[in-house]
Amino acid sequence: MKLKIKDIAIASGGPLIAVMNSKDAAMFDIHVMDRIKIKKGKIIETVVVDIAQSKKVVPKGRLGVFEEVIRSLNLKNNDIVDIAIARKPLSIDYIKKKLDGQRLSKEEINQIVWDIVHNKLSAVEMTYFVAACYTNVMTTEETILLTKAMVEHGDVLKLNKYPVVDKHSIGGIPGNRTTLVVVPIIAVAGYYIPKTSSRSITSAAGTADTMEVLADVTFPIKKMKEIVLKTRGCIVWGGALNLAPADDKIIAVERPLEIDAESQLLASIMAKKHSVSSTHILIDVPVNKDSKVKNRVEALKLKKEFEKIGKKLKKHIKVLITDGRQPIGNGIGPALEARDVLWVLKRDPRRPIDLEKKCLMMCANIFSMVGLKEGYKKALSILNSGKAYQKMVEIIKAQNGKEIAAEDIKIGKYSYDVLSAKSGRIIDIDNVLVSRIARIAGAPHDKGAGIYLYNHIGSKVKKKEKLFTIYSESRHEFEYAKDMAKSSKVFIIR
Amino acid sequence: MKLKIKDIAIASGGPLIAVMNSKDAAMFDIHVMDRIKIKKGKIIETVVVDIAQSKKVVPKGRLGVFEEVIRSLNLKNNDIVDIAIARKPLSIDYIKKKLDGQRLSKEEINQIVWDIVHNKLSAVEMTYFVAACYTNVMTTEETILLTKAMVEHGDVLKLNKYPVVDKHSIGGIPGNRTTLVVVPIIAVAGYYIPKTSSRSITSAAGTADTMEVLADVTFPIKKMKEIVLKTRGCIVWGGALNLAPADDKIIAVERPLEIDAESQLLASIMAKKHSVSSTHILIDVPVNKDSKVKNRVEALKLKKEFEKIGKKLKKHIKVLITDGRQPIGNGIGPALEARDVLWVLKRDPRRPIDLEKKCLMMCANIFSMVGLKEGYKKALSILNSGKAYQKMVEIIKAQNGKEIAAEDIKIGKYSYDVLSAKSGRIIDIDNVLVSRIARIAGAPHDKGAGIYLYNHIGSKVKKKEKLFTIYSESRHEFEYAKDMAKSSKVFIIR
Repeated sequence: MKLKIKDIAIASGGPLIAVMNSKDAAMFDIHVMDRIKIKKGKIIETVVVDIAQSKKVVPKGRLGVFEEVIRSLNLKNNDIVDIAIARKPLSIDYIKKKLDGQRLSKEEINQIVWDIVHNKLSAVEMTYFVAACYTNVMTTEETILLTKAMVEHGDVLKLNKYPVVDKHSIGGIPGNRTTLVVVPIIAVAGYYIPKTSSRSITSAAGTADTMEVLADVTFPIKKMKEIVLKTRGCIVWGGALNLAPADDKIIAVERPLEIDAESQLLASIMAKKHSVSSTHILIDVPVNKDSKVKNRVEALKLKKEFEKIGKKLKKHIKVLITDGRQPIGNGIGPALEARDVLWVLKRDPRRPIDLEKKCLMMCANIFSMVGLKEGYKKALSILNSGKAYQKMVEIIKAQNGKEIAAEDIKIGKYSYDVLSAKSGRIIDIDNVLVSRIARIAGAPHDKGAGIYLYNHIGSKVKKKEKLFTIYSESRHEFEYAKDMAKSSKVFIIR
Repeated sequence: MKLKIKDIAIASGGPLIAVMNSKDAAMFDIHVMDRIKIKKGKIIETVVVDIAQSKKVVPKGRLGVFEEVIRSLNLKNNDIVDIAIARKPLSIDYIKKKLDGQRLSKEEINQIVWDIVHNKLSAVEMTYFVAACYTNVMTTEETILLTKAMVEHGDVLKLNKYPVVDKHSIGGIPGNRTTLVVVPIIAVAGYYIPKTSSRSITSAAGTADTMEVLADVTFPIKKMKEIVLKTRGCIVWGGALNLAPADDKIIAVERPLEIDAESQLLASIMAKKHSVSSTHILIDVPVNKDSKVKNRVEALKLKKEFEKIGKKLKKHIKVLITDGRQPIGNGIGPALEARDVLWVLKRDPRRPIDLEKKCLMMCANIFSMVGLKEGYKKALSILNSGKAYQKMVEIIKAQNGKEIAAEDIKIGKYSYDVLSAKSGRIIDIDNVLVSRIARIAGAPHDKGAGIYLYNHIGSKVKKKEKLFTIYSESRHEFEYAKDMAKSSKVFIIR
């Protein structure tokens, strides 16, 4: 069948989708979400079909195509193309198999990941895969195969060094910007630490957002390698690299139901680490009722799984279960967090001691993994010597940044102090509200927006004492954030 | 936030979807598949968000909307609307609950069905529901609740008669047009039989397609009621009625993986029957390796489930397990099947005896359900008396058709005889190939297209004897079908 292309000028955001008129579709027994092959010249592409009931959208004889298809086949409006019915990708059968409770083989998992990476599966089909892995939990072997497949179908950073150190914090705790302190300390000690970080998903800042206050974070993998080989460390945005790209697509269909298939979480983290050739990996699992890992039992289960998979992947894994009840550090939002970090590195009296201690503890654990003794003392001495700060400047410069004094970091010009309504002891801080207010204030897209906390759990405060300050770059968002702060209980004081 | 509407002039086919620019979405922490409320004047509608990366599609400050949203809010291009973040529908939590292996309550199932009917769930979310019901099989109680909810959230035909007879054949067998013979016989016997039928999904004709050769099949429910009260029977297209509309939406997301959650299949059939107030229902379950029910064990399991649910819904159910190895009747395709049916009703010597016998056997079972003895004899006598034919003419006229002689039904003008390559006995007929060739020949959209079979399993044929004839209305499709028939083994002869 020959059809005339109609560019419908909209992106699907991934999948290759074409829209047929219902009459054309009926003739060839094609239904919504079936697949057809489109042939233009010598290029053939398989796409998923959507069906238009109204001829206003796609008239009979025409084929509406999304941007991704236009690009993939180099099409122009009114091009004539050949259409044929395509078979379903093999992985559909394998997803069905998993849904039926059977174990998947290496080849089957590989095919599923390949099809995901190459946009061969629709969102509905990926959803069946996620649901299948969620209800029929993957075995450790399957999770390892999934991890390896995700790494294989993506770019890999090969350093040819040993050991290569890495760290990962499971998200959800405001602040917690340990990476920007840990990376320079580890690099000063002579170890390679090619750190990729994420941008914010639901928090006020991801590590990549914060680092971006000081330097660029978007680099191709070749440039990342150059930086690491030169300075031993880097802090770049993982999203700009093509590391385990299947992972991001899976996460997108997990969101609507907030599903975290455990196998998926493990494979996701391990794949990103495996992709940069890390050999010694520290995993920080903050526990809190509001965060990803809700209690110690869950945390211990996760720890065991990480260790099992680490062993099979021949990686040294150490899992730290940490306290996630409150924000780590005082600044929440990219600029405020970057300032905290520079204060820690420069040994400024205004530095947040909780953040510093957590970073030193993490370094101590990393040092112990690579066989160094008295790691805490060593990390502290590197920090006190100013060498960690110098290393950070070196990394910042390698990532196209300039040395900047903590005080010169631009914070939002609108500010509002939230005072304590009464005297007492702080017994709880609501992490979810802290993030929400900082986001409404403009973080992370306005780097200078966020919250600065003056107190943590356990502190005594007096009535009318400052609890935190909201910073915003725009009056509009500032008013919203102020309203939100006034109407909600961020601190619980008794 | 205020945004300016951009009509992107495409239909989603159901769900209410709006497309935001990635920058606007980031500011409000909105992700793909999140929900927002759109307010225009006093009308508020909740829609699912898609995100455009390129400003070509949806620039910052604008909101792209699909046709369904335009209609629902009565929008015009460049209208200014108010946007607010909306909570997820309650049913998301219930779907998660089912996915976690828990049982759902009446209220929870009701909410899910309501949200499906009102387009509140995205395809991904519905997929999680189907996957959940597939892996964590619903209890009989849950299936009954699902059935009732599907009926409740749709139109209902109330006849206030007792008994109300119905029948259903589980699809997949070519021909098998029993409804057009059974309905008039039952109606002549004085029983109400308000039959709704489907159009073809993967076969060469659905009962509605075949009936359409003789009369109209698309009626509003009010008119359907009039017809049934007048003639006691009808044969109308279920798809034009709003009976258990949730069912069709669920089926759409089952297709990509060809999933048939058993609970779903049961609820689907029972809901359609319940919607027309049937009290005595005969279910025909043809068994064949290629069809929906693959063997006797599966059929018996299904039979038991149907009986359990029937009891709970206070309906008389009888399940017949029948032979599905070959087509029933000789004609395959709307016009050819309609001709077969008229031949049976008019006692023409050319009538297919296998179809006639199956119809009489089904009538006998229905008569026995309503307490009539010697049902087979009674059905045969009604058929032989010519009253069934007269009743069919009455129904055809009530459905805006005219009496037509079987010979005057228009069959495709292009025809091609497929001859036997050797002498021997027919040991198998490939149902899938029969349907495929008939479809390629043009069925069901070309009513006169299809296949006419001269022999069934068990018959002896001589070399060069006619096995079947292909009919087409257009030269183009005719050639395709001929090629297909030449290159495939429809009959196995030994």
